[in-house]
Amino acid sequence: MEKISKEEIADWFRGLQNSICTSLEKLDGRSTFKEDKWIRQQGGGGRSRVIKNGHLIEKGGVNFSAVSGPTPDKILQALNLSETDFFATGVSIVLHPNNPWVPIIHMNVRYFEMSNGVWWFGGGIDLTPHVVIPEKAKTFHQLLKSTCDKHDPSFYIKFKEWADDYFFIKHRDETRGIGGIFFDRLTESGGKSKEEYWNFVNDVGETFIPAYTDAVDELRDKAYSEEDKKWQKIRRGRYVEFNLVHDKGTKFGLDTNGRTESILMSLPPEANWEYDHVPETVLQKETLEFLKKGIDWIE
Amino acid sequence: MEKISKEEIADWFRGLQNSICTSLEKLDGRSTFKEDKWIRQQGGGGRSRVIKNGHLIEKGGVNFSAVSGPTPDKILQALNLSETDFFATGVSIVLHPNNPWVPIIHMNVRYFEMSNGVWWFGGGIDLTPHVVIPEKAKTFHQLLKSTCDKHDPSFYIKFKEWADDYFFIKHRDETRGIGGIFFDRLTESGGKSKEEYWNFVNDVGETFIPAYTDAVDELRDKAYSEEDKKWQKIRRGRYVEFNLVHDKGTKFGLDTNGRTESILMSLPPEANWEYDHVPETVLQKETLEFLKKGIDWIE
Repeated sequence: MEKISKEEIADWFRGLQNSICTSLEKLDGRSTFKEDKWIRQQGGGGRSRVIKNGHLIEKGGVNFSAVSGPTPDKILQALNLSETDFFATGVSIVLHPNNPWVPIIHMNVRYFEMSNGVWWFGGGIDLTPHVVIPEKAKTFHQLLKSTCDKHDPSFYIKFKEWADDYFFIKHRDETRGIGGIFFDRLTESGGKSKEEYWNFVNDVGETFIPAYTDAVDELRDKAYSEEDKKWQKIRRGRYVEFNLVHDKGTKFGLDTNGRTESILMSLPPEANWEYDHVPETVLQKETLEFLKKGIDWIE
Repeated sequence: MEKISKEEIADWFRGLQNSICTSLEKLDGRSTFKEDKWIRQQGGGGRSRVIKNGHLIEKGGVNFSAVSGPTPDKILQALNLSETDFFATGVSIVLHPNNPWVPIIHMNVRYFEMSNGVWWFGGGIDLTPHVVIPEKAKTFHQLLKSTCDKHDPSFYIKFKEWADDYFFIKHRDETRGIGGIFFDRLTESGGKSKEEYWNFVNDVGETFIPAYTDAVDELRDKAYSEEDKKWQKIRRGRYVEFNLVHDKGTKFGLDTNGRTESILMSLPPEANWEYDHVPETVLQKETLEFLKKGIDWIE
């Protein structure tokens, strides 16, 4: 059997972007995506799709890209390689809701290969509630676990821990949210074939809509106060801090002259900073207690 | 004559913080500074002073610190040195105004020395107007030039160019604002004595209040529209991007476990991001044209 090709992978990601956008428009019920097609000078391009002022989603993006060309020096250095060509394709999503009870969600699924034969998959889904509701965190993690368990009993624990470590705001000593799963450099040395990892990445991509549908359920129309909204903007500030200071994907994109508007679609519509802000309500205080590594949400 | 000591330098900076806060409270006319004293576990500490919801200033900080201890590894590596102790002291200011016609201002003056005898001064003042008004930019640069010219005819050109290079948002291909002056590692090898550089840094510190007073003059009460306010929040987003992605001072502070709330006092009260935002008015469009390196504001 022929191994799956980079063209087939990119095609599948393109289809995933389509189906997720269709589902999100239905879920939102008001706004639709606007598309920007872009071409990368050194090779490839993408389709950025953004949505704003929706009923559910205040600002969001569902981006597809498939880029190629000489491998950026930063990667060559990191891998201790000399000149190669590369191909990278994937789908990235960040959704900022209107309602502060609804979490911010992020998903990324990606494939990378080089002309020297090296290839890998990466990705993950994670949730950043402005206010953590443990029962909702539990069903989110359960869903991710059941996706992982279909492929390998070790995946969930490993990738959940990886998310805790990755989505960590070191200068605040807090996690970005309640985590989820994160994985990178999945390749044959990990013990599975390319097809097996690809099937797993497919399943992760298809878990996004059920996971988000559940995450917003019973919260999207929940009443909120001015105080809740203020807290949301402070938490969005932390999201900005993570993405601009710590996120390796953002840093890599900006360092390698990626398309700035597509990379920074992850930033919220509005974020606030207040010197030494302290939580004002019990739920806000509890939320900070939940922003720690190593919490077992499922037990 | 004895060389000026680190204690004398720190004392002068403490006094500068006091006098600037007093002047700013007078200029603001409504709010006053709140002080947080903090102690650094490894040595030294600081006095963070913040002001908010003023008549002129929506959010601002005037921070003094004098810290000491083993030199952070990042500095040792950069200088290719083995273990030493260090002492660093300085005053940092960022003021975000209410009125979008009024620029954001930043100043820093600092002194650094190590137990091996190495020492240097650094600092600068720069302006980030939300809307660039060339005549105001001119008087700002003229004032900085006259401060520089009192000490060396080469300073202004050199330090103005340094500011253009330093306050550059690479991923946006635009400068943060209209620049000003920036300098670092001023030490004897630069051709002047410690006293001479110290006198220059004193003069820079004392230029802050006249520079800001002029920068806000005739603008602080200028009427503005909702559109102007929206533009201000977009520009504040760019300020956040510079400070979190590119600013070496911020990065160094966060990397070396500095006091997060004091470092991030530079962030605006409220910043917005809109996908692919384009300027809506002539003045906004012109502003983007002015955010370039190498503009001679004085000629």
